[in-house]
Amino acid sequence: MTILAVGPHPDDIEFGCAAVLIKEVRRGTRVKMLVLSRGEAGSHGTPESREAEARAAAALIGAEIEFLDFGGDCHIEHRPETSIRLAAEIRRARPSIVLAPNPAENQHPDHAAVGRSVRDACRLARYGGLTELRGSQPHKIGTLLYYNITTHIGRPDILVDVSDVVEEWQTAMRCHATQIAGKSYLDLQLTSARALGLAAGTEYAIGLLANDPGLVDDLAALERSAREF
Amino acid sequence: MTILAVGPHPDDIEFGCAAVLIKEVRRGTRVKMLVLSRGEAGSHGTPESREAEARAAAALIGAEIEFLDFGGDCHIEHRPETSIRLAAEIRRARPSIVLAPNPAENQHPDHAAVGRSVRDACRLARYGGLTELRGSQPHKIGTLLYYNITTHIGRPDILVDVSDVVEEWQTAMRCHATQIAGKSYLDLQLTSARALGLAAGTEYAIGLLANDPGLVDDLAALERSAREF
Amino acid sequence: MTILAVGPHPDDIEFGCAAVLIKEVRRGTRVKMLVLSRGEAGSHGTPESREAEARAAAALIGAEIEFLDFGGDCHIEHRPETSIRLAAEIRRARPSIVLAPNPAENQHPDHAAVGRSVRDACRLARYGGLTELRGSQPHKIGTLLYYNITTHIGRPDILVDVSDVVEEWQTAMRCHATQIAGKSYLDLQLTSARALGLAAGTEYAIGLLANDPGLVDDLAALERSAREF
Amino acid sequence: MTILAVGPHPDDIEFGCAAVLIKEVRRGTRVKMLVLSRGEAGSHGTPESREAEARAAAALIGAEIEFLDFGGDCHIEHRPETSIRLAAEIRRARPSIVLAPNPAENQHPDHAAVGRSVRDACRLARYGGLTELRGSQPHKIGTLLYYNITTHIGRPDILVDVSDVVEEWQTAMRCHATQIAGKSYLDLQLTSARALGLAAGTEYAIGLLANDPGLVDDLAALERSAREF
Amino acid sequence: MTILAVGPHPDDIEFGCAAVLIKEVRRGTRVKMLVLSRGEAGSHGTPESREAEARAAAALIGAEIEFLDFGGDCHIEHRPETSIRLAAEIRRARPSIVLAPNPAENQHPDHAAVGRSVRDACRLARYGGLTELRGSQPHKIGTLLYYNITTHIGRPDILVDVSDVVEEWQTAMRCHATQIAGKSYLDLQLTSARALGLAAGTEYAIGLLANDPGLVDDLAALERSAREF
Amino acid sequence: MTILAVGPHPDDIEFGCAAVLIKEVRRGTRVKMLVLSRGEAGSHGTPESREAEARAAAALIGAEIEFLDFGGDCHIEHRPETSIRLAAEIRRARPSIVLAPNPAENQHPDHAAVGRSVRDACRLARYGGLTELRGSQPHKIGTLLYYNITTHIGRPDILVDVSDVVEEWQTAMRCHATQIAGKSYLDLQLTSARALGLAAGTEYAIGLLANDPGLVDDLAALERSAREF
Repeated sequence: MTILAVGPHPDDIEFGCAAVLIKEVRRGTRVKMLVLSRGEAGSHGTPESREAEARAAAALIGAEIEFLDFGGDCHIEHRPETSIRLAAEIRRARPSIVLAPNPAENQHPDHAAVGRSVRDACRLARYGGLTELRGSQPHKIGTLLYYNITTHIGRPDILVDVSDVVEEWQTAMRCHATQIAGKSYLDLQLTSARALGLAAGTEYAIGLLANDPGLVDDLAALERSAREF
Repeated sequence: MTILAVGPHPDDIEFGCAAVLIKEVRRGTRVKMLVLSRGEAGSHGTPESREAEARAAAALIGAEIEFLDFGGDCHIEHRPETSIRLAAEIRRARPSIVLAPNPAENQHPDHAAVGRSVRDACRLARYGGLTELRGSQPHKIGTLLYYNITTHIGRPDILVDVSDVVEEWQTAMRCHATQIAGKSYLDLQLTSARALGLAAGTEYAIGLLANDPGLVDDLAALERSAREF
Repeated sequence: MTILAVGPHPDDIEFGCAAVLIKEVRRGTRVKMLVLSRGEAGSHGTPESREAEARAAAALIGAEIEFLDFGGDCHIEHRPETSIRLAAEIRRARPSIVLAPNPAENQHPDHAAVGRSVRDACRLARYGGLTELRGSQPHKIGTLLYYNITTHIGRPDILVDVSDVVEEWQTAMRCHATQIAGKSYLDLQLTSARALGLAAGTEYAIGLLANDPGLVDDLAALERSAREF
Repeated sequence: MTILAVGPHPDDIEFGCAAVLIKEVRRGTRVKMLVLSRGEAGSHGTPESREAEARAAAALIGAEIEFLDFGGDCHIEHRPETSIRLAAEIRRARPSIVLAPNPAENQHPDHAAVGRSVRDACRLARYGGLTELRGSQPHKIGTLLYYNITTHIGRPDILVDVSDVVEEWQTAMRCHATQIAGKSYLDLQLTSARALGLAAGTEYAIGLLANDPGLVDDLAALERSAREF
Repeated sequence: MTILAVGPHPDDIEFGCAAVLIKEVRRGTRVKMLVLSRGEAGSHGTPESREAEARAAAALIGAEIEFLDFGGDCHIEHRPETSIRLAAEIRRARPSIVLAPNPAENQHPDHAAVGRSVRDACRLARYGGLTELRGSQPHKIGTLLYYNITTHIGRPDILVDVSDVVEEWQTAMRCHATQIAGKSYLDLQLTSARALGLAAGTEYAIGLLANDPGLVDDLAALERSAREF
Repeated sequence: MTILAVGPHPDDIEFGCAAVLIKEVRRGTRVKMLVLSRGEAGSHGTPESREAEARAAAALIGAEIEFLDFGGDCHIEHRPETSIRLAAEIRRARPSIVLAPNPAENQHPDHAAVGRSVRDACRLARYGGLTELRGSQPHKIGTLLYYNITTHIGRPDILVDVSDVVEEWQTAMRCHATQIAGKSYLDLQLTSARALGLAAGTEYAIGLLANDPGLVDDLAALERSAREF
């Protein structure tokens, strides 16, 4: 199995869903992180230091990582050209599961733009005739899931129990030293994961939203849900 | 694994989700059907014939079946006493998964009343001090799922691929001869399942709604979703 | 009465709402189809064959048809320039009713982009001072309705009973031979129309969403609704 | 055509939708008003004076009127027995269109209770076997519409242009002298109707919500909608 | 100013919003707690010990406390008689602000029933003619706010910064020793308050939902909102 | 305190929320109006006359006013470059409260585009590293509120009682003589404000939507809400 996780800025994947990726790498999943800016507009850090932080985190997670340039932090747009470029990446990575930021508006505009562009890219990746994608093999992903970055919008559909990798997740987040110095990102994400975990009767959980209904053969995988209170 | 499927009227479980139950029985799940009226207010059939039809269908499905009386068809209320009686049944059956009608209003009032009562019953079943439940062992279910009966309200969270049991499902539905004579229930349910199946790239699917976020250890069970179009 | 039906790709109007158009042509309505790409990115067919298929379908429906180029399939954007060009077309055709794709996201991005652009165009068409529209007469449409293309999002506000033109509708859809060879579009649309029809106590129905509340003089036209189950 | 309008209190139909009824009576529709309390809990007026006011208003409207007792103002419950009694009334009146209060909560509790009970009653009225309804002929209504009483919740689906009966509507509302003395009901309803009318490019309009999608044969009745701004 | 806080079970007010009450008592507000059961159905504690715990917590908060019996824990119903009894209490306490549990379903059924009953009671309290309330003076509250108890449903409208009373809040929650022994209620509530606080740029916050739009004379009180991320 | 009110066209702020601004100026708030076009596409008036009307209105209100050009009326886009330019203006004006048009779609496309762009601009204004903003001091606003322009979408969160400035508000609206000649804007806005006012037990009110939960220290400012009916 291959998972492609897409993040607008160098630390979004780590803060949003790295705990899930760590668990997946452990069980043998190939994980690729695709980062769409170098945090050029952030209050702290340089593009170079931001990229280095992300590469260090990816190494800890056990994931491949690549950077793409869409005009820089705060300039990413939800437009056909963005989706088509991302579709090309999806065809290259050929994931069965794609993780993208929550596409809801009213958060950092790049988060919504990337969430929506990845959603459209997953569709375009399977169309045979797009000129810009000529030469690459169409690919149909299996599932598109969304993760939250600091702003939690909507009720999650899936909680992944990450209680057993909280230490590793914190280590990955701490790679982004330029970011956590000035703002309580790490604290916020851990606290949110703890609240979700407690509500599900475990210690820590990451909430994911599903773009489409899941398709299953039977109910075997559905025996647990978040109903502790 | 044990599944408890609750239906307001003798044919609701069969029309709404019997295809899922047939698949579950095949893979060894114990399935119990709990029917809360005998269809006393229906335009066709007698309580006796209705019960007999449901028992025949349960036998075909391979499920246990029991009937409870809550005042008869069209008289079921979403009240504490309903939920407490259902909680007692949940403690007896001790299911990990419970299937109930969609609790949304604007359908047959019994459907909504039973959906909401089962939802509350799943919660009450685990409280230790309820006088009415004294003597029975508290039980915490794992997952509460809702099925649709003729009226499809809201987007399903889960699609179960039932393409391989469509024949058996039809046979179970046809047990309710008094009902399908006058109205196109069977046709409607098959057509709806076909529309859901096509949208998911398979032949027939049953849509279920989840009362709570699912809790998983990793993304292994999430590799497929409904994204054919 | 004039109806303007706008479709992103050569087959969208046919799959989405041609059955309604066939009925309208029969009762004397002038119908114009406006197609905004030639399906350049599709897996099957060439722009030339796609256009020819659409022209054949329009002839069967009894509608005029025109093609506009917005950069090709998968490149249509919801931007002011798109809406302004469509507003010019609305002024030319001067329809009382406009049919556009459902503007909800999470379907083919062109579908949402066209739905939203047509919605805005209907508004711009009545403003007097737009430089790009100078020389054409402002026009105020009466009603904007949305149709679904393969992905059905939201509850329809209006069901049009198309039971009496199902054969003709299928013939129109079959004109798009390059598309239905590889994918079950026709089957999906017929099945969805059948499900809607059964729920309304008829055979087949097309569901439409209204952009605005309808305005009526009395309740004469509201005597029937979908309440079979 | 017969319309049955149901109101929880003696003045609700008048304030909420009498303008529509006046237009319907004018074009020959039989209109029956069913009032489910005598305003026993109101701050002003006695049950006797309240009933007299409603009878005077009904006479002005040109409607039949009947009173039922469900325990009095502030005591109406959304329970099966309420719906079954109302179903009996529906069978007696045999309307094609039923008008009931908006069933949304967060308004006077009787309003929501009556809206929901009428909704369920419309369904029960067509079931053949209900003991309580034995002897009366099952009846299937055509359309269930909701009107707003002082609290406007949700976007209306239908606006009825009542500009030509505003005077008569005011006269009917003024019959409820005990109520408009103390509170600005009349002003509020007229102002709301004026706001809806202006938004639709006319003078005054009553907004109605549809319980189900409307079913039509073609788009002839849909040529106008509220899109003045 | 008087605040009336209503809780279904002896610990709900403390877990849900005691931090707000502590701040209000400090600034001179009279606070009355109204508890509608003695936790008879809980897994731990007796009615006597539960009441004693609540009385100890009320003393710490600085609030008056009273108990009412509505049939016991898990038996509270949203019915007119519940709302009327609560309306009598509202007339006695004459609060300007009322705090009730979130009325959304899909949590402990008592929580939703009490939230909805208090909402209706606030309305009934101002009607002059209710027989059951004869002799007491009608009262119109100013504002109805909802608090969350373990299950957080919907986005809060208002966050109250409670960073300066977290210690006192914990002390009040710890009075419910029988409850926090077996389940992580305290941990969950603190974690949720911490997540809300961090998102608002402070340490701890309680989220409240408003039943109605707030009415203000100017924007002076609106200078701060939750927009830290 | 400083308020920045942003309007797409020269009359939007006046029609939408000038009554609030008049009250704020009276109590000493500095108010700045930022207008993003000169109404170039309107049916009536020239860019010069439109600007003159707005300047006259601003003088009456007691507000500063500036105009920015984003390509003209009907051409404003929700894109990063729009938000970044607006962020620069926010840094210049340094407001604690920002008023922008409702960002919901299905109204004049400029209204939604400006609402969404201002929302994003408020966020970008506090990021330290944006090249385009270099040289200006990052600024964090306190609260982002939305006002409605002719189209009222969604329930307001806040009602501002403007009964005491209705005359002045009308005078400010009447400055836009070219607009109110042809269309009933003034009548619509007054009627809507009257309907909101009546529902809140006052005469006239402006409804505002909050982008984020408000943050307060206690409940002192929440003693009044709209619950007259």
